[in-house]
Amino acid sequence: MFEKIIEPTLIIDKKKSLLNISRMAKKAIDNNLIFRPHFKTHQSKEVGEWYRDFGVAKITVSSVRMAKYFAEADWKDITIAFPLNPREITTINTIPGDITLNLTVENTEVIELISPMLSRPVNIFIKIDTGYNRTGIAYDENAKIELLLKLIDQTNHTAFKGFLIHAGHTYNCNSKDEVLEIHQDSLSKISRLKNNFSRSYPDFIISYGDTPSCSLANDFENIDEIRPGNFVYYDLMQNHIGSCSVDEIAVAVACPVVAKHPSRNQIVLYGGAVHFSKEYLLENGRKIYGRRAILDNGTWHNIEDSGQLTSLSQEHGILEINDHSEYEKISIGDLVFILPVHSCLTANLLNTQHIQK
Amino acid sequence: MFEKIIEPTLIIDKKKSLLNISRMAKKAIDNNLIFRPHFKTHQSKEVGEWYRDFGVAKITVSSVRMAKYFAEADWKDITIAFPLNPREITTINTIPGDITLNLTVENTEVIELISPMLSRPVNIFIKIDTGYNRTGIAYDENAKIELLLKLIDQTNHTAFKGFLIHAGHTYNCNSKDEVLEIHQDSLSKISRLKNNFSRSYPDFIISYGDTPSCSLANDFENIDEIRPGNFVYYDLMQNHIGSCSVDEIAVAVACPVVAKHPSRNQIVLYGGAVHFSKEYLLENGRKIYGRRAILDNGTWHNIEDSGQLTSLSQEHGILEINDHSEYEKISIGDLVFILPVHSCLTANLLNTQHIQK
Repeated sequence: MFEKIIEPTLIIDKKKSLLNISRMAKKAIDNNLIFRPHFKTHQSKEVGEWYRDFGVAKITVSSVRMAKYFAEADWKDITIAFPLNPREITTINTIPGDITLNLTVENTEVIELISPMLSRPVNIFIKIDTGYNRTGIAYDENAKIELLLKLIDQTNHTAFKGFLIHAGHTYNCNSKDEVLEIHQDSLSKISRLKNNFSRSYPDFIISYGDTPSCSLANDFENIDEIRPGNFVYYDLMQNHIGSCSVDEIAVAVACPVVAKHPSRNQIVLYGGAVHFSKEYLLENGRKIYGRRAILDNGTWHNIEDSGQLTSLSQEHGILEINDHSEYEKISIGDLVFILPVHSCLTANLLNTQHIQK
Repeated sequence: MFEKIIEPTLIIDKKKSLLNISRMAKKAIDNNLIFRPHFKTHQSKEVGEWYRDFGVAKITVSSVRMAKYFAEADWKDITIAFPLNPREITTINTIPGDITLNLTVENTEVIELISPMLSRPVNIFIKIDTGYNRTGIAYDENAKIELLLKLIDQTNHTAFKGFLIHAGHTYNCNSKDEVLEIHQDSLSKISRLKNNFSRSYPDFIISYGDTPSCSLANDFENIDEIRPGNFVYYDLMQNHIGSCSVDEIAVAVACPVVAKHPSRNQIVLYGGAVHFSKEYLLENGRKIYGRRAILDNGTWHNIEDSGQLTSLSQEHGILEINDHSEYEKISIGDLVFILPVHSCLTANLLNTQHIQK
């Protein structure tokens, strides 16, 4: 099945990925939520098509470039969940008018900058910060929110759509309980937001993100839409957080073995920072850039003691295997399969994808 | 000059880069060394052409893919400084016969695997480890080296060219003195290698790598060829090590400003992990992913207190500026210029390059 692979290659286990999509789609239906998956994880038209069978018609992306790419693949309702970059307004104007385009804004300056140039209707989500402290207006800064709402109302071609929230601080959690604590905190802030603005804007929606919360929570009070992305593949970081089991990780990177150093229990892989990204997990003070998974019957399982990537340079990866009999099973010229730490960054780097049926 | 930039874009200051090339070329001439620069840093045919005026005719790359790319650009003597991956032998056979191809090998298994398939002449460098402990046969493992030499002699199409060394542990240094200490240690090991094998193989050469050593050392006894790559751009990591001054850094990433958060002294940039890579420097326990450089007269200078990238997610970068008056000078919609931590990884991610004349 993998004989023709000669370079580091992303392998997607389609069956696992479809199960991940199916589970999240069911959760959306059960909780009466719009399911608007984030496509930044796969960035692939082919993988995008898998969602259609689950009734998905609305998608999220994180750049204008990605919006154009998926518009070409016939997606008709696209949210760009990244603070609107005024320098890209000319490109935004070229996105066909039959596509519903939702932009994310967090300040009046941007609306003022784009207002003379914008030539197509766009919906505006106001980015709200519930504690991640990366972007957005703090949930309780009512005056600031009202000022922005007023400006959106007054500006041609812009219509207020709702509040967009990404509780990205769940990515720093070390357990399910920590994720759920952040989620409960978000819910209480969302409730306040809903109370404050639903009289003036009865139709706005709350759009909520992040794979850990959407994977683990069962309470979505006041939330209208979810935008998880990573769940389509999951990865070691999500497993560490508690969002998924190891068996639910749907991608692995196939890497050729080019050298062995038995005295150090090390195997040198063709597979480095330009393939995996330098995202890592800390384990007993040591950086882990990926874990070996053992292939059986066309898919992978069992990562207990099977080996870990302990170092990456541009093209090299160092795989350490402590179990001697496992180490001996691997020969120069073989392929090994590595579960990545952060599948979004790894998939972004590896354009060639081998998709398992 | 930069009005048309709408997305994170790598800006190369050609003048600075030519100075960096010129300085290294002069050092090679002064020390009677073959100058075989590593092209993995820029991976660009256009930048590659800049070297020709300095008499460069031999180059280094780190993958078969890159070798093919530069072969198309009429480079006729190419070393692939990465352990030979036997799965790529069919591709290697397709590289035109008028190109001198030098491969890197560190074990007999690889020669045995490729021997029945290889259909073009190749030179073989044996990779020697002088202390980096990533790849290669340890410099003093004579029996192992001799076994490999014997096999190369017996195999069709393979000719022993020399020993290839990369003292990559200089990248972990914190000062010029530390780099020079590693370099002296390498020289003494190289001297031993030379003594051991020059009687049986009077024509072999010693090829030596790494930008820190080649930038800082002035003693190249027993070395015949240098293969630095990063020096063409340099970066914050090289500045930290002591290989270059800040003014010698020849690349910056232009990033659009999309939001400001004055209460946190933070500016949100369009420019994230998919643009910079997640390589960082540690400063007082804090991760720094890049530093702001101030643009003046078409180039950048002065990074004192001008701001640092303190956080990266997929597309977002967080720029912190502590000086209030500097902070106030920057507006949403502006471009800021960020010096990267590791230019090789950043250039690999940013395909669109804007080259300053």
